Amino acid sequence: MSELLDLVGIFVFALSGALMGVRKRLDVVGMAVLAEITALGGGIVRDLILNVRPAAFQSLGYVLVPVVATVIVFFWHPHVARVMPAILVLDAAGLGLFCAVGTEKALDYGLSPLHATLLGVTTAVGGGMLRDILAGEIPTLLYDRQLYAVPATLGSAVMAWLSSAFGLHGWPATLAAAVLAFGLRLAAMRRNWRAPLARGLTE
Amino acid sequence: MSELLDLVGIFVFALSGALMGVRKRLDVVGMAVLAEITALGGGIVRDLILNVRPAAFQSLGYVLVPVVATVIVFFWHPHVARVMPAILVLDAAGLGLFCAVGTEKALDYGLSPLHATLLGVTTAVGGGMLRDILAGEIPTLLYDRQLYAVPATLGSAVMAWLSSAFGLHGWPATLAAAVLAFGLRLAAMRRNWRAPLARGLTE
Amino acid sequence: MSELLDLVGIFVFALSGALMGVRKRLDVVGMAVLAEITALGGGIVRDLILNVRPAAFQSLGYVLVPVVATVIVFFWHPHVARVMPAILVLDAAGLGLFCAVGTEKALDYGLSPLHATLLGVTTAVGGGMLRDILAGEIPTLLYDRQLYAVPATLGSAVMAWLSSAFGLHGWPATLAAAVLAFGLRLAAMRRNWRAPLARGLTE
Repeated sequence: MSELLDLVGIFVFALSGALMGVRKRLDVVGMAVLAEITALGGGIVRDLILNVRPAAFQSLGYVLVPVVATVIVFFWHPHVARVMPAILVLDAAGLGLFCAVGTEKALDYGLSPLHATLLGVTTAVGGGMLRDILAGEIPTLLYDRQLYAVPATLGSAVMAWLSSAFGLHGWPATLAAAVLAFGLRLAAMRRNWRAPLARGLTE
Repeated sequence: MSELLDLVGIFVFALSGALMGVRKRLDVVGMAVLAEITALGGGIVRDLILNVRPAAFQSLGYVLVPVVATVIVFFWHPHVARVMPAILVLDAAGLGLFCAVGTEKALDYGLSPLHATLLGVTTAVGGGMLRDILAGEIPTLLYDRQLYAVPATLGSAVMAWLSSAFGLHGWPATLAAAVLAFGLRLAAMRRNWRAPLARGLTE
Repeated sequence: MSELLDLVGIFVFALSGALMGVRKRLDVVGMAVLAEITALGGGIVRDLILNVRPAAFQSLGYVLVPVVATVIVFFWHPHVARVMPAILVLDAAGLGLFCAVGTEKALDYGLSPLHATLLGVTTAVGGGMLRDILAGEIPTLLYDRQLYAVPATLGSAVMAWLSSAFGLHGWPATLAAAVLAFGLRLAAMRRNWRAPLARGLTE
């Protein structure tokens, strides 16, 4: 179940990587590289910091799902772009899931709640940042003002709090944290909540 | 004492990250991400290479100080920019400190003096390079011609040499190496010492 | 013998890094940083993922060869650029060698053939991607349409297959895989084989 949810999150992130490849007119190799790195990058960074072998290098599905996403985008990208609103919702689900799972793994390896929260956010947003850097752009996350890292931070913090204050583990806590981040991200998109610029900068 | 010096270095590097965020018109999330990565990135890369869990994920202060720097820059960035000359001096102090501490940690983990020097420099300049890449710029270090990596290299080499040739450890050696790199960096700024371009390139 | 071949590959990749530095008008520090990272980056990423201390931080030659390459490019870059066709052939040899050696090391550390192939490709192309990112460009690999990662992938796959299906190890398998990737890369250059763009994008 948890493995299946992981694969859904990886698939959605891989779609966004391959679509970025189309938008920047990369060839199919570039699309595949972006799909793999967008989908797996956040988890790989998390596991490097936890000093364990990355999960992406121990699972067949993690590596093959981005290949499937690349093939789909390669042949049907106009249709994929047309269903982008649906993909944004799936991306929000992936964001929620990855921050919750990342925080949980960090707690399992003995990090403090604060550091586990930080690493959960890294898991959720790391792949997208690597995607943007490879595509020659400033990571969207840094300037976009749409709330993206903030929902992930709150989801991760709730996960760390449920686990350290109440001893809640496993799928109930993961689900609660993931749903919270997912809902906040959707609300931020719908109501156009925005992060502020530094004081005095004109909009 | 050593912890306090570390925090000062982290604070100064975080200020430079958050100020880069203002300059590139990033939102507050982007400012905080740049502050964290500028301040902690060099040490994280060092610890990944040493194959130990990054110090940044074991200390509350390391993670919270960049948040404080972000808040200060968010509200008072015109004043912070006005005291930039003072910040450049502090940055030189951070550079000296980080190269000495990084080299010492590398020696403690059994690296040769040459490799410890390389890793000391990486500790000192890695965060700033990551800041520039995330902000969509070529790292200043690579083209700026102001001597920045060179003082760090000399400081790291002296640290490695004091330690391997004389068995000097702890704060006297660290202080000597840090002061050397700090002094060289200040002299390079004041006298405008410049690194050469490849032979035949016109200025 | 294997160490010598490694050093040749490192030397060639370092030349390409230092030449990129000249092309972007970086100073000598920038040239040296690009040379080191281009030559050693792929192997460092491989070793971080394998969770072992990077080989580059245990060998004097690995660190010093890029310094030599930087000095050569600094003084004789017009000549180096003139022999670029020869360097492209050497680069193809480095590509073949690095993908074979990287795959073998990954298998030695217990990765599955699929994951070892992926890590072999990462070893071969990682340094060049880091070089381009540091130089402020989208990695050539992603958009260039010349086949570069594909020969490395086939070489890595053959290495993994010889090893897992026939128990072949050591230099015969490494040589076969390296020569295959090398030959495919040369053929791709000569016959201008190209990777496709996503369906419907005009050339």
